[in-house]
Amino acid sequence: MNKEEKKRIALLIEYDGTNLVGWQKQNNGNSVQGEIEKAAKILFKMDCVIQGAGRTDAGVHAFGQVGHMDIPLDNKLSKKNNFYLVSAFNALLKKTTIKIRSIQNTSFEFNARFSASKRFYLYRFLSRSAPPTLLENKVWHIRRKIDIKSMEKASNFLIGYHDFTSFRSISCQASSPLRTIDKITFKIVDDIIEMRIEAKSFLQNQVRIMAGTLIKVGTKIWTPKMIRNILDSKCRNLAGETAPAYGLYLEKVDYPEGMLKKIWDSHF
Amino acid sequence: MNKEEKKRIALLIEYDGTNLVGWQKQNNGNSVQGEIEKAAKILFKMDCVIQGAGRTDAGVHAFGQVGHMDIPLDNKLSKKNNFYLVSAFNALLKKTTIKIRSIQNTSFEFNARFSASKRFYLYRFLSRSAPPTLLENKVWHIRRKIDIKSMEKASNFLIGYHDFTSFRSISCQASSPLRTIDKITFKIVDDIIEMRIEAKSFLQNQVRIMAGTLIKVGTKIWTPKMIRNILDSKCRNLAGETAPAYGLYLEKVDYPEGMLKKIWDSHF
Repeated sequence: MNKEEKKRIALLIEYDGTNLVGWQKQNNGNSVQGEIEKAAKILFKMDCVIQGAGRTDAGVHAFGQVGHMDIPLDNKLSKKNNFYLVSAFNALLKKTTIKIRSIQNTSFEFNARFSASKRFYLYRFLSRSAPPTLLENKVWHIRRKIDIKSMEKASNFLIGYHDFTSFRSISCQASSPLRTIDKITFKIVDDIIEMRIEAKSFLQNQVRIMAGTLIKVGTKIWTPKMIRNILDSKCRNLAGETAPAYGLYLEKVDYPEGMLKKIWDSHF
Repeated sequence: MNKEEKKRIALLIEYDGTNLVGWQKQNNGNSVQGEIEKAAKILFKMDCVIQGAGRTDAGVHAFGQVGHMDIPLDNKLSKKNNFYLVSAFNALLKKTTIKIRSIQNTSFEFNARFSASKRFYLYRFLSRSAPPTLLENKVWHIRRKIDIKSMEKASNFLIGYHDFTSFRSISCQASSPLRTIDKITFKIVDDIIEMRIEAKSFLQNQVRIMAGTLIKVGTKIWTPKMIRNILDSKCRNLAGETAPAYGLYLEKVDYPEGMLKKIWDSHF
């Protein structure tokens, strides 16, 4: 299929990852990529590949995952307003926990993964004795008080350009462990602690290992200063556990100005 | 059982109402009251009645329902710190969507229902084309833009002391339709519209009928001024539909100063 015969669209995607095997297609269950491609095949009567901004793990949720896909032009849905395409996708995704929030036409230069200028992740801890119920499978339940002042202090050591070997999965295949963390913020909402992390890109499990390490500081098991030592050690074993996937959300993906500016405003 | 042989406790309760028949015990399913009383019977080896601040309908959720219960003093759990009692309740409520957030000892003057000085309800609308997934059964999905400025204007007609006949269920058994609404506020959080309503007490379905009526204004079907006419008409049929239970949350209950001041701080 030539470029003349197709157009590229960007999709804003929300999902509850609880019963998904993650973003990437796999044989052992339903994936975000697999379900959306299955729907696209029904809509466009051909295989259309979707590429996502973040390849989230099994159980991880998304409010604002972004994907791009090339679709044929000689299709009645392609000629209509994207509003109809959103509805058509959601009708086919009805029985899944994946929803298309909006769709925008983009140029062929746009790549959901490689054009991304920033990824925003949210990690939610529930700090109380009682287990979650309204947020079951949506928060990491910590049966202790959490001191966010200490977590803020600790997180300052992680801001900036560092070798994050201590904070990546031992199976991480990225060629370099160097990354730049732009911002880490904390917010208390009733008995929930929200931790937000922004960076252009992340290593495998980086946000979850950061969450699992910083919570050791928040619960006063480790001091904030130990985070610097863990970072300097370049040793995964010294950092905390990989926090559970179900507390993690891909909240938003940013692109250079103009590339995808309207996708968050066009939900109708 | 004499007062000397028992003590009164207040319980702060969270529940996901999706699969519950509501607060009150009924024969056709699990209720908040029924499940908590079942747990209490196992813990205290006797029948203990719980009275709640708000008798929420089937499907309605709560972040901060309050109940009171008299428990026997000659029980090992009654003598321990309430932290153990919270854990014991939650262990027995494990398979339910009801959790005890905290427990506080109170005097026999305290009555969860009649001592309440203010009830805070939250109603959540999801305003977008895509159906909910992360908040399935937790929001009312409105496939239109919602103008909260108009809703604010309309809600001003409802503030204060009024005859709310138009805004109560025709099966409402309250002797008087007169109530005082203290405050109605709106907040946009991404694609969610949060509507909060505060009053000492409410008529049956009052918040849900208000939500179902104000959303007609928010979606530009009705003008704000029509709300005054509906109120003046004292006719239920002129108001909007009863908004679905699953968008409604009992968020908090206030009591006169000193009566229950620590219950929100003692989650451990």
